[in-house]
Amino acid sequence: MKYAIVFGGMSYEHEISIVSAIALKDVLKSDLLFIFCDADREFYLIPVAKMKSKLFSSGEYRKETKLTLKNGGFYQKALLKEKQLDFDVAINLVHGGDGEDGKFAALFTFFGIPFIGPRVEASVLSFNKLYTKWYAREYGIDVLDYEVLHKGEYSVKTPCPFIIKPLRLGSSIGVSIVKEESELEYALDVAYEFDDAVLIEPFVEGVKEYNLAGCKAETFLFSIVEEPHKEEFLDFDKKYLDFSRTKQVLAADISEELKKRLHEAFKKIYNTHFEGALIRCDFFVIDDKIYLNEINPIPGSYANYLFEDFTSVVNQLAAHLPKERRIPVDYTYIHSIQKAKGK
Amino acid sequence: MKYAIVFGGMSYEHEISIVSAIALKDVLKSDLLFIFCDADREFYLIPVAKMKSKLFSSGEYRKETKLTLKNGGFYQKALLKEKQLDFDVAINLVHGGDGEDGKFAALFTFFGIPFIGPRVEASVLSFNKLYTKWYAREYGIDVLDYEVLHKGEYSVKTPCPFIIKPLRLGSSIGVSIVKEESELEYALDVAYEFDDAVLIEPFVEGVKEYNLAGCKAETFLFSIVEEPHKEEFLDFDKKYLDFSRTKQVLAADISEELKKRLHEAFKKIYNTHFEGALIRCDFFVIDDKIYLNEINPIPGSYANYLFEDFTSVVNQLAAHLPKERRIPVDYTYIHSIQKAKGK
Repeated sequence: MKYAIVFGGMSYEHEISIVSAIALKDVLKSDLLFIFCDADREFYLIPVAKMKSKLFSSGEYRKETKLTLKNGGFYQKALLKEKQLDFDVAINLVHGGDGEDGKFAALFTFFGIPFIGPRVEASVLSFNKLYTKWYAREYGIDVLDYEVLHKGEYSVKTPCPFIIKPLRLGSSIGVSIVKEESELEYALDVAYEFDDAVLIEPFVEGVKEYNLAGCKAETFLFSIVEEPHKEEFLDFDKKYLDFSRTKQVLAADISEELKKRLHEAFKKIYNTHFEGALIRCDFFVIDDKIYLNEINPIPGSYANYLFEDFTSVVNQLAAHLPKERRIPVDYTYIHSIQKAKGK
Repeated sequence: MKYAIVFGGMSYEHEISIVSAIALKDVLKSDLLFIFCDADREFYLIPVAKMKSKLFSSGEYRKETKLTLKNGGFYQKALLKEKQLDFDVAINLVHGGDGEDGKFAALFTFFGIPFIGPRVEASVLSFNKLYTKWYAREYGIDVLDYEVLHKGEYSVKTPCPFIIKPLRLGSSIGVSIVKEESELEYALDVAYEFDDAVLIEPFVEGVKEYNLAGCKAETFLFSIVEEPHKEEFLDFDKKYLDFSRTKQVLAADISEELKKRLHEAFKKIYNTHFEGALIRCDFFVIDDKIYLNEINPIPGSYANYLFEDFTSVVNQLAAHLPKERRIPVDYTYIHSIQKAKGK
């Protein structure tokens, strides 16, 4: 299986995506192409040997082969005719905007490129934290209470301490914990820098957090359950490091029964909306009850470090991508009108 | 203002979109370009004088100038360099799939083309009737009770009579009213032809229906309130005709108070998610209570027949399109890592 890893994008997580792609280069044991989408949304084919962060930060990538995305795939200029890039499946590795908000899903679907990643609906559901709440509740998964504020609003009903998150952003960017009222205004202003709307949720001290990644191929393929380290919670630099992780971590020390319940919760969230994607669900457990915190439809470096055999999981997923429903257009209606008109 | 009307698409409503575009040609008094997206998702520039349904049903459109959609706009081949098509604002007139499911919104946004039509999130919210329910309830607008069934499921809790709709389709395609249990299986099979999931709602005999179109420019611009004719309800051919309507209709005979309440309900639904779009909201009124039935984010021929001065409304909307948030990418993080490593 030959993969084209698409990364970059106009996103607050543009740099994270580069780090993530470099990590994937080492852990995905397959034939790989790297396609960089720069902040101006131009595409470049990056030779594997040049996949180092400096190529991008220096702007040197602009010397590489430029690509055009259109019907059927990515194309590069050639002497007589454009040449189509040869790969089997694209991997959407654009974190945050462009990648996780549905734009890349739409591009790949529209232009007929098979891809690993969330489809348009699934992207929108997981990118907007308010929609994630609606979605989880519909499918019987608990979520924390919440309120949504819009730019210019500063009056919060949730009692302190609470957490403020931009409505449509990942990787802890713009997130604050407000412990007393005096911190509120500044925290809101920070979040409003990144989005016109913010989500507010009670902050539960010492809450148990469990992350579980997985996907559906012939059956569900699950990662180990990880208990993330608490100090990472709000530290953007540490989160960044998260995206470059390539070493497998230890499974959380939890009962088989809880593990099974986390698997069941994951299945309810995944199925069938997230088909085609390898996602990570971040759960809270409070008083033995499971709550969905967030869905990461494109986790950092695809959460490779949570899987025993990451390459095999990706290969199985790539062989079970959802097919777009082909719609026949046969002009029945127009023909019948023309017939009625005697044309 | 010069508009590029984009129509067609791989959609069950492909033909409707053609009819809709032909209607718009006559009522939108402005400089117009017509860009056809065929069922294979190739783009063609159609001369205004050739905008007749037969050009498409005969396949003759393939002789017209082919266009490429990419960064900045639509391009046509020229001798030395590609030539960019010159227009100010695109109008998304692709009904149903591709147009209303978020794909075209994503394409226009990604490639930096200003456009009239719903953005990605708004498309997904209105295209999936289940999401519309969540959305309306969140913003305090009543909706009818519902249940969702998935392909292979035939057991319905809602008592007869009820209405079955494919979850993600407009224009009454695949819709049935089930009056007694014996009709259920066939009606579900019809709906499953078009989607893997269906929405079931109680069918309220003789319900009052009111349609209201509008958009937000400097302020909200509303159409008249229309009371659609009941016999059109399930008749696909008549619905088709709806898309070619160009003659202004009479306003419904309702109280000023009800009109005001419909306006308020519209505003709650529109603001701010649907900015950039001219939408039509279809409401029910039952026991003096307003219910949202559906949001049409790209109504047939843009519901021109409901406006007194349609061209002026479109021009005002075009001058108040939402701007995409530009995200600065400055490689701060990668620079800081490189510095730490002494590179």
